Amino acid sequence: MNATMQHLEASLQQKRELIEAALREELPGRDTYPEVLFESIHYSLFDGGKRLRPILVLAAAEAVGGKLETVLPVACALECIHTYSLIHDDLPSIDNHAYRRGKLANHRKFGPATALLTGDALQSLAFEVLTHPRHAATVNPERLLQVVYEVAQAVGPQGMVGGQVVDTISDLFQEDLKTLEYIHHHKTGALIEVSVRAGALLSDAAEEQIEQLGRYARALGLAFQIVDDILDVVGQAEELGKPVGEDEKLSKMTYPALLGLEQSRRLAQQLGQEALETLRGFGPMAETLRGLAHYVVARTH
Amino acid sequence: MNATMQHLEASLQQKRELIEAALREELPGRDTYPEVLFESIHYSLFDGGKRLRPILVLAAAEAVGGKLETVLPVACALECIHTYSLIHDDLPSIDNHAYRRGKLANHRKFGPATALLTGDALQSLAFEVLTHPRHAATVNPERLLQVVYEVAQAVGPQGMVGGQVVDTISDLFQEDLKTLEYIHHHKTGALIEVSVRAGALLSDAAEEQIEQLGRYARALGLAFQIVDDILDVVGQAEELGKPVGEDEKLSKMTYPALLGLEQSRRLAQQLGQEALETLRGFGPMAETLRGLAHYVVARTH
Repeated sequence: MNATMQHLEASLQQKRELIEAALREELPGRDTYPEVLFESIHYSLFDGGKRLRPILVLAAAEAVGGKLETVLPVACALECIHTYSLIHDDLPSIDNHAYRRGKLANHRKFGPATALLTGDALQSLAFEVLTHPRHAATVNPERLLQVVYEVAQAVGPQGMVGGQVVDTISDLFQEDLKTLEYIHHHKTGALIEVSVRAGALLSDAAEEQIEQLGRYARALGLAFQIVDDILDVVGQAEELGKPVGEDEKLSKMTYPALLGLEQSRRLAQQLGQEALETLRGFGPMAETLRGLAHYVVARTH
Repeated sequence: MNATMQHLEASLQQKRELIEAALREELPGRDTYPEVLFESIHYSLFDGGKRLRPILVLAAAEAVGGKLETVLPVACALECIHTYSLIHDDLPSIDNHAYRRGKLANHRKFGPATALLTGDALQSLAFEVLTHPRHAATVNPERLLQVVYEVAQAVGPQGMVGGQVVDTISDLFQEDLKTLEYIHHHKTGALIEVSVRAGALLSDAAEEQIEQLGRYARALGLAFQIVDDILDVVGQAEELGKPVGEDEKLSKMTYPALLGLEQSRRLAQQLGQEALETLRGFGPMAETLRGLAHYVVARTH
């Protein structure tokens, strides 16, 4: 492991610990709502996920000289959104996945009704955490409203849900690169982009920096998804925690299926390079964002 | 029809027209996201609902001397939330209703995957509409953040979704009045209360007025739900647009089942009276809220 990777590992570890602690602190306590819902939310929220989105929030804040604690609530909110989307995607009416990260999918553990409502609750919780008075008072209120708006738009019909709809009914579309890009840019890209923008917005970054970080995130998000597709084809079942080739079995469009493995790899590398280039004007505090651009392309699980 | 009812009808009609127009204006246009999602959202959002929640937003603003146009976005947002909750409640894994307001439930028309995602999208849209920059700039940002927070909390695990969870698994609970009140106060009451509070908050009402209106809404909301239960037992199928006695068939707890019809009617009347009394300190601009307290108890469909 070289020095860059060691630095990245240490930075990710520090950020993950902050996020785990904040998630437990920000969410309403066990006795404030029905037990089964509490159990179900915590089952899916604490299951060893990579925490990529909240890490991006923190790393973006860091890159523009902001304080990590200021953006921890929005980091938690985005992880709640991501978890809600995974629970709903796994439901029988969508992807019908039995497993997620090596354990039973939420609906297999708690039943489809509770899983549905758990996802619904996590979406609400995201906006609750984002605007909780104890934090709202510590940031510029206009900026926070802008973040709420951007998050809502990124996960709504023009963002994540729009991408999920096209993915779900994609057999109605021509299987081309344009459709696949639409799906990825919306289904996963929009949330990744708003994570980076939100971290910068709440750190009072300049408009130009926010724009550049947005471009970084778009390249990173697509690279991440292409590598996901590649790993699904070539990965090891135990490493991914879900049966390899599952996406192919459901005859979903993937980059390797459309472009072949080699060209997919090249495209991911090119996007990683693009992401790095958008960070050229940033100083050493953007090192974690740079490391992530390397990691996302190089990862094997 | 007496003069009070005529005044109420005219006021409701005026407000409904404002809401219908605002809903069409506030939501993203047809070409900005996948067609099937647009069709599905509009199918469920424009289906002849009573618009009780957005009307309450407007009537509360009116009661404290606010402007209707200031609170139209939050009115639209709450109708989006209400519509999302109906679509998800109707899904096969929850209530499995085939019809809603006399036409096919969303999942029977568009399939369960699209219905699920339509509900998800409507929840996001609510927060998007609520914080859209073109409106956010016209109100006190701290108040708007407070409204976003209260709405999120009212629909999350400590509010609407919490009530829905208990309702869904209510055969695990003792069938008593306490459980039934929990369900109603959370499943429907929380959203009705926040509608009234949001209208007052964004109209810069005094804290005491907001508190009183909150109490009005709690009484009104429970009365509304009890009358719903009564109508389900005695109503006419064509008036309600769903088979009479459907709740009973699913062996759900209802007020008539627990208290009997007569005592349920008395309780609804008493709550309507309570709602009226909380408005004693308000002037003639609270006439629509007063009329609604009469209407909710007296309605036959």
